[in-house]
Amino acid sequence: MVTEVGRYREGIDPTSEPAAPDAHAVGAVVDRFYAAFEARDLDAMSDIWAHGDDASCTHPGWATLHGWGAIAASWFGIFDQSDPMQVFTTDVRVRVDGDTAWVTLDENLLGAGSDPAGTTVAALKVLRRIDGDWKVTAHHGSVVVGHPDE
Amino acid sequence: MVTEVGRYREGIDPTSEPAAPDAHAVGAVVDRFYAAFEARDLDAMSDIWAHGDDASCTHPGWATLHGWGAIAASWFGIFDQSDPMQVFTTDVRVRVDGDTAWVTLDENLLGAGSDPAGTTVAALKVLRRIDGDWKVTAHHGSVVVGHPDE
Repeated sequence: MVTEVGRYREGIDPTSEPAAPDAHAVGAVVDRFYAAFEARDLDAMSDIWAHGDDASCTHPGWATLHGWGAIAASWFGIFDQSDPMQVFTTDVRVRVDGDTAWVTLDENLLGAGSDPAGTTVAALKVLRRIDGDWKVTAHHGSVVVGHPDE
Repeated sequence: MVTEVGRYREGIDPTSEPAAPDAHAVGAVVDRFYAAFEARDLDAMSDIWAHGDDASCTHPGWATLHGWGAIAASWFGIFDQSDPMQVFTTDVRVRVDGDTAWVTLDENLLGAGSDPAGTTVAALKVLRRIDGDWKVTAHHGSVVVGHPDE
């Protein structure tokens, strides 16, 4: 569910108003990202990533991985080694500019194990429209350990 | 110094080849970001950020801040409370698509204090060309605590 495309449509970026359908398409790809994550489905994850050398992925605490090969290997390892997790996304904010989009959101992880149950991961993604389909070309996630007000 | 625009120019994204001058312009703004950070110069930092409500900033370990007001306040606090730090950027990779650009890089922090001296922060930034000038509209940094191969 794209929870916060509404923020986008309500005019955070009024110049992009006509692109609201694109924002929904981008949000749907983000949803598929987390469905693939929950299902540990590498094919589904592969389907929504750009496969070029310039794709990048920064898992929480990791160095940035470059290129789909390294990124795919990382997902394989994560799917193979981690406990099943549910992810509820909140505060999803989609911005679209032509064939590029970027999204901020929070991943709220509920794990079967003790860790990382209850963890919140802040994420920034960049997507590109390639041959008509939105693909994730950059993903950066990091665990929220504190808030500036705390 | 934009250390790795070469990667870009050498064809990570061949479709963007004609934009190489844009990549240099984007890289120069990234350099100004870190110059402002080292100098603790809020005016200089302000000058290279987009000031809209849709700007976002995720400092290492923080929840994502939305809107220039909250972001400016965070930089004020960081400049006020942190020890002076030097930042050497490495592996700067710039991608440009029209009026949007995104950049991955590593921030290598050398602090005057014991922490975060020697820390590496992986970063993803999104910039937009607004009235001819590239502005940072999204920044996400996270401390690298491990590598997938470790």
